[in-house]
Parts: sequence; structure tokens; C-alpha cells
Amino acid sequence: MSTGHHEASWRLPESDPYAHVDLAHYVHLARIAERGTFDSLFLADGPQLWNNLAQRPAGALEPLTLLTALATATEHIGLIATASTSYNSPYNLARKFASLDIVSGGRAGWNIVTTAGAEAARNFGLAAEPAHAERYARAAEFLDVAQKLWDSWEDDAVVADKAAGVWGDDTKIHPPRHEGRYFSVAGALNVPRTPQGYPLLVQAGSSEDGKRFAARYAEAVFTAQQTIEDARAFYADLKSRTAEAGRDPGHIKVLPGIVPVIGSTEAEALAAERVLEDHIVYTHGVNRLENLLQLEPGTLELDGRLPDLPPESAIEGAKSRYTLVVDLARRERLTVRQLVGRLGGGRGHLTFAGTPEQVADAIETWFTQGAADGFNIMPAVLPSGLDAFVDHVVPILRARGLLRREYGPRRTLRERYGLPRPANQYVTPALARA
Amino acid sequence: MSTGHHEASWRLPESDPYAHVDLAHYVHLARIAERGTFDSLFLADGPQLWNNLAQRPAGALEPLTLLTALATATEHIGLIATASTSYNSPYNLARKFASLDIVSGGRAGWNIVTTAGAEAARNFGLAAEPAHAERYARAAEFLDVAQKLWDSWEDDAVVADKAAGVWGDDTKIHPPRHEGRYFSVAGALNVPRTPQGYPLLVQAGSSEDGKRFAARYAEAVFTAQQTIEDARAFYADLKSRTAEAGRDPGHIKVLPGIVPVIGSTEAEALAAERVLEDHIVYTHGVNRLENLLQLEPGTLELDGRLPDLPPESAIEGAKSRYTLVVDLARRERLTVRQLVGRLGGGRGHLTFAGTPEQVADAIETWFTQGAADGFNIMPAVLPSGLDAFVDHVVPILRARGLLRREYGPRRTLRERYGLPRPANQYVTPALARA
Repeated sequence: MSTGHHEASWRLPESDPYAHVDLAHYVHLARIAERGTFDSLFLADGPQLWNNLAQRPAGALEPLTLLTALATATEHIGLIATASTSYNSPYNLARKFASLDIVSGGRAGWNIVTTAGAEAARNFGLAAEPAHAERYARAAEFLDVAQKLWDSWEDDAVVADKAAGVWGDDTKIHPPRHEGRYFSVAGALNVPRTPQGYPLLVQAGSSEDGKRFAARYAEAVFTAQQTIEDARAFYADLKSRTAEAGRDPGHIKVLPGIVPVIGSTEAEALAAERVLEDHIVYTHGVNRLENLLQLEPGTLELDGRLPDLPPESAIEGAKSRYTLVVDLARRERLTVRQLVGRLGGGRGHLTFAGTPEQVADAIETWFTQGAADGFNIMPAVLPSGLDAFVDHVVPILRARGLLRREYGPRRTLRERYGLPRPANQYVTPALARA
Repeated sequence: MSTGHHEASWRLPESDPYAHVDLAHYVHLARIAERGTFDSLFLADGPQLWNNLAQRPAGALEPLTLLTALATATEHIGLIATASTSYNSPYNLARKFASLDIVSGGRAGWNIVTTAGAEAARNFGLAAEPAHAERYARAAEFLDVAQKLWDSWEDDAVVADKAAGVWGDDTKIHPPRHEGRYFSVAGALNVPRTPQGYPLLVQAGSSEDGKRFAARYAEAVFTAQQTIEDARAFYADLKSRTAEAGRDPGHIKVLPGIVPVIGSTEAEALAAERVLEDHIVYTHGVNRLENLLQLEPGTLELDGRLPDLPPESAIEGAKSRYTLVVDLARRERLTVRQLVGRLGGGRGHLTFAGTPEQVADAIETWFTQGAADGFNIMPAVLPSGLDAFVDHVVPILRARGLLRREYGPRRTLRERYGLPRPANQYVTPALARA
């Protein structure tokens, strides 16, 4: 949510309830993030109206549109848009990301999602959500087709010989001629190969299918982790799966979400967190929790606890979020009210209220203890929470040598993440030719 | 083509052969157009690689991406993107145009195309191009769904009551619940109603199906007309069809394309035109002509004439362009070489080489004689041809009272075209309620 990742943030006096459709608001956020030398901006998304209007700001600018507008207002920061493999065509989507990568000078990233839920399905001609495994099978084929399209122009396909009247070399164009289970795509993309070759590939599902997909394709993984133990286990598991898939485990970056609530003292931070909790409308939170847990409306009681629930394997929705929420409630013996309060802050991401030093300590611990390669910073209130992070936590991280002081000469998002530009699958390396 | 609408323009010394993927080039063009107080910019498009690289610059930035980037670099000019109803989903496309309309402050337009050709079809899982009538039937349903989505939020759906914790009024949300022949779309759009309600609707096919579609939906029509007589007949026909469809004929603007080649003398303009013709690679032009006329490669001889050809009703491709080209060759008794030369300049649009006064005279004649409500200016060479038009033709048009001198207080593209903001189909007018 654009007024902050806490669901009640829009109700604070400082918040603009129309911010979610205000380009100037996002430009302001992006420039704060560039002041903090962040790697990238990330926009979540789904092709449906997510919640009732009564509850909180609904709707959003389409992420590729918004990030394209932000590309022209920023210079350095990466631009990661969420887009669904279940409800797009590979040709159209590959082209849009290629265009964003060109327009931004190589700063595009794609958060690949398969889109849980029947509501989205019903906006695209389906009566019900496709099964989880089916969605991931389609996603894998989608990625294969998209990579063929992004590689369909060799980097040196354009010769621009004005005198001879020859603009390009057609032998360096490789139409995919793909015929698969989900897609048939014959022709080459109508966009040249881009600065990054293709956008940074990001993934955010932590289910079994999701982790298998990430190990094969993802270069960065957003994840919700409530404890450092869980985060370390997830991190180690994903790195080892990536190695098993034949890839360099250094080429997948694990980025847990963290919702910082910063105060000049711990008491001040906790007070700020309480103000937010006091603004939660609990009946709405219970409705959403019932929806996530796939319970009938009216099942949960605000001051009761969760009932017995089926295992993750029995549900078809957002599997890893389901398990995280159930585990959180069990581990901390939370009532429904307490659980809604916790989820209101970060929808499953780790909420951390404290001083700048405490927040920096948590980040350093997770980073140095094998729980994270970086973080997805999700301030509870925007823009003030991002300003506070950049003004007070970033200087500490820089002093500790954990964060760059300036962007330096690296230009593309993949360079910022320390990842190589992908080779073109249709080009035989020169050494092998000799 | 971004170096100009003449196919050989990229070969001129002044042209950048990489301009078609250079945002700065387009920003430059857009700013020249704003200096000339143009209503709008228009980007043609198709979801396929249109030509061989050998021939001329191929590929393009995806139009919605490019126009979004241009929205932030301009203040006044309308931004019209071509997008296909055959190869998009209504939910995704409606959302992208709504987002562009918001980001641009109400300057979005959609050039609605059904996309001829098997090449595009094969990029979207189809073995062959759908029949012409089928494409238009789908387009009509697509528009109905898109309008339902754009109207799915009433303008005053957001109440933003922070104290009560109520952000919006769910009774003002109208999910389409559409179940049709081509589409099923259940839910409301996840973007609020936009400054214009929805983008200006533009159409460019002049076939029988195309004109019927335009009369029902279009607010502006791009058309290729070679003579003022044909243009007047087309204009009168479209206005009367629009009236028959129950709409105000003043609410559809007819905009023929014109390819100006401007010189300080007529001889200079004709010489500039000859330089362009000398840069045409005729074998490529013949190939494209065979493709348009649905002839086997090798059928046409460069210094021969067109063979007997079937009537428009027998072909499934770009019908009106087919007839225009065949008629042009017949009427002016052109050889294949001459025809390729003429098409190289404007692909069927009227090429006009002359002095600024001569170009202004032609525009005035067409405008005052019932042949046009405005023009789609397609300079043979860019940016120089646009500069020449703005520096030399625009002042004459302004002096004659045919063109605004400044943009003035009107903000949205529809306001510039003198069109009303569309009412929301789900809102009962207040008078009817009383």
C-alpha cells in the first residue's frame, strides 16, 4: 500500500489517502530510496481488486506503467514490477519488460508470480483458479518462451550500413518457433536485445513448487520470514537447491522483507507501533484472515485462537503465506486479535520496532549469519518511514561497511546485485567455434 | 519508423539508425510537437517483427511503455498508443490505459486495432489469422468489456474518511460480471475511474467492418486518402454512419494522414523527395507489395504493371489498404517501380512535397472542404521534417486562424479534441432520479 505497509497507515494524519494513484508520491519515494543508495524498488501486484473499498485504499497503478514513469524520474535505482505468468501472454509481457529495460538503461526486474485466487481467474475467462502445480508448470514454460524471445536478437544484429542500404543481419535473428503445452510462439520479438539481456528475474513464492522454480530461474527471491532460524534454514535450502540445479548459488540473492518502525528511543518506536495497531479495523482483518486460511466467513472469533487447520499441501492458494501465518499463531500462542495486529503491520513479514541502532543490528545479524543477502525494506508508513530509514539507519549501515556510500559506475540492476549479464542461448561462445 | 515515415529515411546522413529504441529521440520529437501545439502523438504498432532487418529499422519500444515515459517529459500533448483487441485481455489492457490516463493527467488515447496477418496470430498460439469479421466481432465485445471496466468505479467511490476508518464506498463499485462470446470478466478494475473516464478511442481501419466499428465507438479516425474526392466521400460517409448509430457526428474526428516534404521552393521540396526515392531498395519494396497484395513472391516485375487482382471482399488482411493501393496504381497508371516509390513515402498516405504555403494551402483546402477535421502529420524524415513543419507551416496555419497559438486551460486529450467526458454507464443522471 502506498501510504505504507501497515494496513492502517492511510488513517494517520500525515497520510494522503489518494497516494496510491499519485505519480508524484511515487517519484518522491523513489528519490528518497536513491538518496539511500537502495538497489531497487519493488511493486507487488495482482490483476484483481484486492479488497473492499471500505477497508483501505484499493486499486493501484499498473506496475509496469508506474515503473516506466519512475524510470524517467530516477537515474540509478532498479525497477522491479510484479507480473503474472498465469494471466499474460509471453510475447506481450516479454516485450513490455524489454521496453522497460531499454527505457531505464538496464534497470528492469520482473517479480514472477503465478497469481493465487479465484478472483483473478474470473477476470480472465476462467471459472476457478488453476491448480498450484499447474500454475507453476505454466510459469516454467512461460519463462522458457520469454528467454527465447529476449534472446531472439543477437546483441550485434544491427549493422546500420547506410551506404549499402542494409540495416540489420537477419541471420542473427532467432524466431523461437516454440510449440509447447501452454504456448505456441513462432516469431522473434520486435524489440532488440536489451542492456541487461533480459530483466532481473525475481520470485517470491516459498512453497515447494515456488522454491523449485526459484532454484531454476530466480536471481533474487523475496521472502517473508518471522525468525532468524527459519530465515537461515530457508536461505541454506534455496542456495543448495540452486547449486543442485547446476547454477552458482551466489547468483540467487535471498531478500527477506522487514517492516521497520523507527523511533529515537525504543519506547517511541513501540508507541508508534501501538498508534498504528489502534487504527486497525479488526473486523476487516478477521475477514482477510479467514480468506487467507480458506475458512468460511464468521468462523473466527476475535478473542479466540485458530481452529485446527489442514496442512499446506491441502490448499491451492498462497501456500507459503498460509503456513507462515499458522506457524506464527501457534508458536507465539496468539489470539485472532493479536494475529490480525501482527499481520496488519507486514502481512507476514517481520515487523521490527526499535531505534536506528536496533534496526541496523537486526539487519547486520541476519546479513552476517546466513539469513539474508539483503532486505526488502517495507516501512509501515510512507514516505515518513522511508525517510527515517534513510536518514537514520542507512548512515549506520554505511559506517559498518554494509552498504555502499554512492552508486558508482555500475549501471544496470544486475550489476548492482553483482550478477553477470546472461549469455544469449543462440550464440555459440567464440572459443568453442575456434 | 522513428527516423521518418519514408522507408529510406534511415539512410540519410542526418538519421540515427538506432533512433527507434532511443527514448531521448522520442522526447525530442514530442517536445517539437508541443512547440507546434499539436493535439496528440500517435504510435502505430503490431505484436510481431514487421520486416526483415536487412530492409530497414525493425522492432520498436512497446507503445504504452514509450508513451508513459513521454508523459513525464511533456505537459500538454495527447498520447495515443496502438493496441490490439485480438491479442490482449480486456482486463490487462483496460488497466494499462487507465494507468496511462492517470499518470499523464488525462492525455491517453487508444488506437484500437484488430491486427491483420498470420505472423501476429502465430505469436499468440493461433495457427492462422482469425477471419476479418471475427476479429471485428471480438473487438466490439472487447470494447464493451473495457468500457464496463473503466466505469466499474464511480467517480466519487472514494470517501477517505480517516476518522471512521472507511476509505471507500463499495456500493459505488460495479463489477462487470460479463459473460460473452469471447470474454468472461467478473470483477471490477483495480484502478479508479480516470481523468478522462477512459482513453480517447481512436480507430484506423477503413474497411466496411472498420467503418461500422468506428461509427459505433471511435472518437477519432486515422485514415489514408489519396485524393480530396475520396477523402470527402469517406468523411461524409463516416459522419452519416455515426449519426445513424445514434451518436453526434461532431463527436467523431476524421484525421487523414499526410506526409509533408517541405522545401523553401517547390523545386527544393521535389529534390528532397527525389533524394529519398533514390535511397529506396526496390527489391524490398516489391517484396512488401507482393505481401500486401497477397501474391506469391516473384509475381511482380519492377517495370511492369499490377496483374488482375481479386476484389477487397476476397481477402482477409488489411482490406482498405489493399483497395487504396490497387486503385492508386490503376488511377495513375503506375508501374510497379513507381508504385513502390509512392508507397515508400507514406505507405498509402498522401505524400505532399512543396513549400510551406503549398502545404498549408492543401491542409486548409481539405479542412474547409469537408475532407478532414484535422491531420495526422507524418514527416518523411524525423526530426528534421517535424521541425520544418512546426517552424514554417504552423505559423501560417496560426495566422489563418486554423490552429491554436497556445494550449490554454484545457487539460485532457478529449478536451483538446472538443469532446465531452463520457458519462459512467452505471450512474443514473441526477435529473432522472428526481
